[in-house]
Amino acid sequence: MTTHFNDMDALPVFPHLRRMANTPFDLTAKALDKNRFATYKCKMAGFDLLYATQRIDNQTMDALQEMADQSDCIQQFLAMKKGAIINKIEGYASENRAVLHTACRDVFTQDPCQPEASRQAKTELDKLRQFLADLDAGLIKSPDGGPFTDLINIGIGGSDLGPRALYLALAAFKKKDHKVHFISNIDPDDAASILRQCDLTRTLVNVVSKSGTTLETLTNEELVRAAFTQKGLDPANHFIAVTGENSPMDNPQRYLRSFYMFDYIGGRYSATSMVGAVMLGFALGYEAVLEILLGANSVDLAAEETDIKKNIPLLMALLGIWNHNFLGHETLAILPYSQALIRFTAHLQQCDMESNGKSINRQGHSLNYQTGPIIWGEPGTNGQHAFYQLIHQGTTIVPTEFIGFRRSQYEEDIEIKGTISQEKLNANLLAQSLALATGEKNQNPNKNFPGNRPNSLLIADRLTPFNMGSLLAIYEAKITFQGFIWNINSFDQEGVQLGKNLANRLLDHYAAHRQDKKYDGEKNDNPDWTLLKHAGMI
Amino acid sequence: MTTHFNDMDALPVFPHLRRMANTPFDLTAKALDKNRFATYKCKMAGFDLLYATQRIDNQTMDALQEMADQSDCIQQFLAMKKGAIINKIEGYASENRAVLHTACRDVFTQDPCQPEASRQAKTELDKLRQFLADLDAGLIKSPDGGPFTDLINIGIGGSDLGPRALYLALAAFKKKDHKVHFISNIDPDDAASILRQCDLTRTLVNVVSKSGTTLETLTNEELVRAAFTQKGLDPANHFIAVTGENSPMDNPQRYLRSFYMFDYIGGRYSATSMVGAVMLGFALGYEAVLEILLGANSVDLAAEETDIKKNIPLLMALLGIWNHNFLGHETLAILPYSQALIRFTAHLQQCDMESNGKSINRQGHSLNYQTGPIIWGEPGTNGQHAFYQLIHQGTTIVPTEFIGFRRSQYEEDIEIKGTISQEKLNANLLAQSLALATGEKNQNPNKNFPGNRPNSLLIADRLTPFNMGSLLAIYEAKITFQGFIWNINSFDQEGVQLGKNLANRLLDHYAAHRQDKKYDGEKNDNPDWTLLKHAGMI
Repeated sequence: MTTHFNDMDALPVFPHLRRMANTPFDLTAKALDKNRFATYKCKMAGFDLLYATQRIDNQTMDALQEMADQSDCIQQFLAMKKGAIINKIEGYASENRAVLHTACRDVFTQDPCQPEASRQAKTELDKLRQFLADLDAGLIKSPDGGPFTDLINIGIGGSDLGPRALYLALAAFKKKDHKVHFISNIDPDDAASILRQCDLTRTLVNVVSKSGTTLETLTNEELVRAAFTQKGLDPANHFIAVTGENSPMDNPQRYLRSFYMFDYIGGRYSATSMVGAVMLGFALGYEAVLEILLGANSVDLAAEETDIKKNIPLLMALLGIWNHNFLGHETLAILPYSQALIRFTAHLQQCDMESNGKSINRQGHSLNYQTGPIIWGEPGTNGQHAFYQLIHQGTTIVPTEFIGFRRSQYEEDIEIKGTISQEKLNANLLAQSLALATGEKNQNPNKNFPGNRPNSLLIADRLTPFNMGSLLAIYEAKITFQGFIWNINSFDQEGVQLGKNLANRLLDHYAAHRQDKKYDGEKNDNPDWTLLKHAGMI
Repeated sequence: MTTHFNDMDALPVFPHLRRMANTPFDLTAKALDKNRFATYKCKMAGFDLLYATQRIDNQTMDALQEMADQSDCIQQFLAMKKGAIINKIEGYASENRAVLHTACRDVFTQDPCQPEASRQAKTELDKLRQFLADLDAGLIKSPDGGPFTDLINIGIGGSDLGPRALYLALAAFKKKDHKVHFISNIDPDDAASILRQCDLTRTLVNVVSKSGTTLETLTNEELVRAAFTQKGLDPANHFIAVTGENSPMDNPQRYLRSFYMFDYIGGRYSATSMVGAVMLGFALGYEAVLEILLGANSVDLAAEETDIKKNIPLLMALLGIWNHNFLGHETLAILPYSQALIRFTAHLQQCDMESNGKSINRQGHSLNYQTGPIIWGEPGTNGQHAFYQLIHQGTTIVPTEFIGFRRSQYEEDIEIKGTISQEKLNANLLAQSLALATGEKNQNPNKNFPGNRPNSLLIADRLTPFNMGSLLAIYEAKITFQGFIWNINSFDQEGVQLGKNLANRLLDHYAAHRQDKKYDGEKNDNPDWTLLKHAGMI
């Protein structure tokens, strides 16, 4: 790939956007007319993005289009999907890997972008289909002869957040009498509370770690294996592994089945690989997994569009950069009006903040502008009764991305006072978008709303497996586009290393102290030991 | 009360703190010596606050002490506990109420701060003790003659977040075979997914709304009542109410029991009133409820201390203001190293952001400084595998408050590679505090950690009901102190009104459209109707 990467502030359009940011579009007063709603609306892959409530006009949109073009972000996206080595920092030791989570769902045509990665994805999907069929047919069964009813997923970070968010989002579609539990935290109370909810005889355990060396996951695996052994059960008949080929966990003696993920799939982008698929296949069935992949794939294809008005993830990326870098808003609230998306924002905290929480560009130089925002949020209407006070009247402006659905999942609803609950939910969703944008003047300063809080609405018909796959891929692509425009490597995570190293030093003290209670770790005013002592932790 | 309220920037010490903020203490290099850990440590009510990793020195501490003194915040705290009318804006229509959540737990002496409010709290506690005893003795039982095993809590905001956070935090101590479920969201899928988890015959329903008029709660109550009726069960034998005396919900015909809360208890401060106590009493037993109250009360008393070095919530309030207003950090991450505190940060989002997300002072004037920060976070070690990349190496500095415990709740733990999981958890906790503060230089810019990320550690022995009560009250007092110093009313929430009003307008369209499918809400370029149409919602 010969694309030359520029920093965002070196793009010709950058100073122009800077100037425009001095007088952004004013959403208060009578700005939101009919025409504006029709103009700022984008349709793609089953979703509508309504962005009339952003502080933009046609000139802003033109400049954002120029920024997209000048950054070559679509070309970079295409190169990524074809397998370019983009996970690297030029001139420094780095991971030097391709980034091919899109290949996991590029399995529906004879002509995938990256044939070898898609072939590997298909192989694993075939193994999964066979495994699920064997479970259904009773060829694989629990020691008491009955079916496996529960599955404990052991993983952390990307091996937990995305899969868990998807499971909760789609629980309405799950197989009757199939239930999934999650253990992630090294906190022993996490495993203890889950273990007392399961009949281990009927329980599968899915251990997920790409490297096969994740401290939390291996520790929790041992803890859960011990619980099986204590009950006289052989873990080898219950445990499944999802890991990299040849990792320390790739050991058929210890697992009923092993599924592979590959070094070109980052943990936070792995929900559509076997990392999510094995657990979701158990819970929802194989067909639902394919639906998720199909939804994601449809977005991966549509996101190749260069016209920002027709490309939802690219448009969201640019509106995000407008709000963050030009209007100066540090955070982004993602607010789904769907209780099923209760953990989707937590997943995006990882996917976005771990990808784009960087300070150097792809050549290793410090950047002069902000990169990834802080992502936070909770489902509405709950959040309305919690933190919305601050987003309406606080001293900090918080851009918001609302997510909503026209129909509920269970479609069990009743009419009270002339409307059903789904209508009440969506009336609140739209009302918040309007209220944040327009504000309202009042003589009582405590009832005054300044407005001009930028936001957008992302809407689909119903939260189905297909739409969940699309929604996931929309955010993955958005994050990727922002990384390209900021000229950062969105695919490594060196920032987690220092904490790991220090934790290991502290663990050495703990271990030495366990062996010899008289152990004294103090030498040369060692802050590890001093903190352990002052915290009363040793 | 004759205390004169000044804005924070009118306090004599303010310009001094401004100047000091130009050269805050540098935590990198060899700053964290033994002496520093011993100096910046505060003990109170079973908790230790370690704050050597904040960007402060003795001069900063002296100035913060002056700010506390000059703001009269301790006097205001005492006046609050005695029943002063502090929920108001001078000269404007406002709630004009006392703020007496502290009275709910001031029930252990003959001489409470506000005798009438504490008498009311005791009356409700007596009713609760009797009700729980009747359940235990089988005097109140389910229609099939067996005990009630499940309780569905219906409430939203303060009637959900605090109680839910406490239930999850203390689930390790819950009665065997007693389980609590929560319905909060107007999203009909919330109720639908809970209803299929319960055997309604054995289920109590606790409906919580101070006003008795909350849209979400009343709607979900009707939805759940319909489910009982459909099963041939009489809701009056299953439903309990927690509400204000004489509210529309205060109706003995419809409820097995009614418990009262009072207008001087704000929703977000109501977890220790009947709002939390009824559900927690069912789950944990009456004695555990008293333990929670005792813990909270011990903090309410200790927080009267004027020396900031001996008062954890006051010290946390001041360090927060130092980081937010003087060092310019917009957000605050609250990161508990305890899986049981999974929803505690969500509770604090309401308690803090709804209290202090304000732009005007208590005289109705606009403020020239930032008030409440954005609160966010997830439990560690999970967060380490998610958003910690950004807090270590991102372009935004995020102050963090860590919370930890020396022992686990279940104390079911195993030694792997020389240490138990609780030690691994706490090694990570302390390592993160050190890593964020000190950083680490590296020739590879991608492995360089700038450090100087301010943080503190709040540590107790074990997450028991008593310590949970203390922790809750520490944060309540911290938030209150910050509001006093910012000179804002932390006890109203006018910012939620505009969205409610607009939602009602949209609901009128929905209702009219339900009655007549030809209804057209368009007149005078009405943005409500236009948005409904463009969103495809009608």
